[in-house]
Amino acid sequence: MDHLLSRRAAGATSSVIRDLLHLVNRPGVLSLAGGLPCADGFPTERMAVAAERALAGGGRYGVEALQYGPTEGDAELRRLVAPADVAFDQMLVTTGSQQGLDLVARALIDPGDPVVVEAPGYLGALQAMRVCEPRFVPVRTDEHGLRVDELGALLAAGLRPKLVYTVPNFQNPSGATLSLERRRELGDLADRFGFVVVEDDPYGALRFAGEPLPPVRLFTDNAVTLGSASKVLAPGLRVGWLSAPRWLVGSLVRLKQAADLHTSSLAQRIALDVLSDKAFMAGHLPRIADLYRARCDALVSALDGVLELSRPDGGMFLWCRLPIGSARLDTTEVLPLAVERGVAFVPGAAFFVDGAGHDTMRLSYATLSPVELVEAAGRLDGVLADAERTAVLAGPAAK
Amino acid sequence: MDHLLSRRAAGATSSVIRDLLHLVNRPGVLSLAGGLPCADGFPTERMAVAAERALAGGGRYGVEALQYGPTEGDAELRRLVAPADVAFDQMLVTTGSQQGLDLVARALIDPGDPVVVEAPGYLGALQAMRVCEPRFVPVRTDEHGLRVDELGALLAAGLRPKLVYTVPNFQNPSGATLSLERRRELGDLADRFGFVVVEDDPYGALRFAGEPLPPVRLFTDNAVTLGSASKVLAPGLRVGWLSAPRWLVGSLVRLKQAADLHTSSLAQRIALDVLSDKAFMAGHLPRIADLYRARCDALVSALDGVLELSRPDGGMFLWCRLPIGSARLDTTEVLPLAVERGVAFVPGAAFFVDGAGHDTMRLSYATLSPVELVEAAGRLDGVLADAERTAVLAGPAAK
Repeated sequence: MDHLLSRRAAGATSSVIRDLLHLVNRPGVLSLAGGLPCADGFPTERMAVAAERALAGGGRYGVEALQYGPTEGDAELRRLVAPADVAFDQMLVTTGSQQGLDLVARALIDPGDPVVVEAPGYLGALQAMRVCEPRFVPVRTDEHGLRVDELGALLAAGLRPKLVYTVPNFQNPSGATLSLERRRELGDLADRFGFVVVEDDPYGALRFAGEPLPPVRLFTDNAVTLGSASKVLAPGLRVGWLSAPRWLVGSLVRLKQAADLHTSSLAQRIALDVLSDKAFMAGHLPRIADLYRARCDALVSALDGVLELSRPDGGMFLWCRLPIGSARLDTTEVLPLAVERGVAFVPGAAFFVDGAGHDTMRLSYATLSPVELVEAAGRLDGVLADAERTAVLAGPAAK
Repeated sequence: MDHLLSRRAAGATSSVIRDLLHLVNRPGVLSLAGGLPCADGFPTERMAVAAERALAGGGRYGVEALQYGPTEGDAELRRLVAPADVAFDQMLVTTGSQQGLDLVARALIDPGDPVVVEAPGYLGALQAMRVCEPRFVPVRTDEHGLRVDELGALLAAGLRPKLVYTVPNFQNPSGATLSLERRRELGDLADRFGFVVVEDDPYGALRFAGEPLPPVRLFTDNAVTLGSASKVLAPGLRVGWLSAPRWLVGSLVRLKQAADLHTSSLAQRIALDVLSDKAFMAGHLPRIADLYRARCDALVSALDGVLELSRPDGGMFLWCRLPIGSARLDTTEVLPLAVERGVAFVPGAAFFVDGAGHDTMRLSYATLSPVELVEAAGRLDGVLADAERTAVLAGPAAK
């Protein structure tokens, strides 16, 4: 019966991360492979208070939290998360920012349309967009984020993408932050060449170093900014939001209505209650930033001399490269050995659409404690040293 | 910039219901137009207990309810809602059954594929599927549901649909229940002609008369059954589920992962806690069935002599036809007059893809109290009598 499958379903392959997660969740494995935020940072007790209020019997909140609601989202929540430069009616609450990405992809991409993605880039975004059958055009990133100069060259050569997808702050997987100059240049290019910048910002509040930078949105009329409560509160709520230009937001609302009618009313009330509690958030945000800083520092220190990396200013991920001497190793091939030795990572090739990145890996410092991170780094060191030795002994034929 | 919109976004028009709801929510209007379940039936206190447990600090539940979870859904919830004839791994938790429909449409429909829908049929389904650009083939319904004989004739004449969409129990909008014989015939046709039956069953538990009938799934290998907590618990949770054949379920999971990663973990834990409380549900289900029965009876009695209708065995909707003598009235034209007079309904034409049904309307008895329903029926009687008189006085030129 699978001849009945649509072209998009036949093309929707399982994500590499998804398959990997099955492998790395073995008992005893210290996993640096995950993409989960730190559960110690969830404001569980405060959210429990919010849930109790949302469901308090008899009041109007009890019904609002449980009845069907508007597709655009709870009006108070939309007002709360709307940045100062964005009008309320340009805000849409989404079922996590993953849905925001799905809706934007569906609103803009026809099969074959060119779409610029970062290389390396966030797998979930590639997966969400792949359903719409774009032609992905990877543009490299470096320690200052997307190489906007390379994008500019492609545009000058005739490329006309529907959208450019970027994670401007502490990118997944590279950890890089897009520099102010590049943000401005990217906005200029969007206005000049007529494409939409989709800036996905799940990690912005997890900054533990440096100064916040203005969103790309401030430098163009054609930006969609995706936000999320997943890292600030908890991902299990599945509450995200987006801002979009006026010509686009109506289509996004209609697509969302078709997709799931609206985001969980209860989850929205809980997010609203906690996010609008300024006194609480004033303590909570620095607390989680500290938590991530401490973990990042522990892992960075422990990897000194093991891998090449640069310390991110926030977020959850370290992007690492094998030392030059070990360039013959392929991190995809090292992973099974690592899992045997009780440590896991995501091979860098998983984050490229073109098979690059075989000497890279993504490490998350979000879920393990500092002590565990040090132990994991030690195991990784051992695995790499052994793999290197084996490769050297086997000689060129080993590849 | 709207030249950047995809073909599907340009084609995703606002639903009629959506536009109508803006009109009918005026103060003082007794609305029979809504599609909301009765909030008095929400087990709010029990759900508050469930939320408290799910978020109880420190325990594993607190983290499970807040962390990312598996795309397929909470394993315990999937086990709980799996019918006896369906294996656990064929169950997928969805963000409401609307998402189930969206996923199935995306998994099966390529542009131009024929898709059979009921006439009249559920608007949200049409809207979810329209995004995939099918060619809708409407098949009429009568008081026993979908005219499977008419579908059979179309198939014999060469129609090869990807899927047939039906709401077998207390259909929205007709209130009709698909007869046992037709369920069997529909299943036979699916096996013989190789299409998927998508049976959407949000109202099955709201039966207040007659005996439950087996799902179409029991009569074919090619059925997707959509279920939902929206009417049994509350729609604001956005928790639904589906069962699908093995060859299809993997594609649905991959599409869901791209769409929103997974359904709210917290909402799933709450649904699991309440739905698995057998003692509570044994009292709750009859209580809500009684509530809908009393409202249905009140509206049916009050409309005696006003409109032609048949009493449904459950669900939320009455499908009404203007008496034969008033065939010159168009319910779409009557609606604005009705709103002026403080009562609202959904004109029947909204539920047809081909412009039929101008002498019909859908009335919901779910949200008003029995006393309000009687008052609403009285207002409707007055509006129709006035409209009829005006039409008669104006003569044929009035149309």
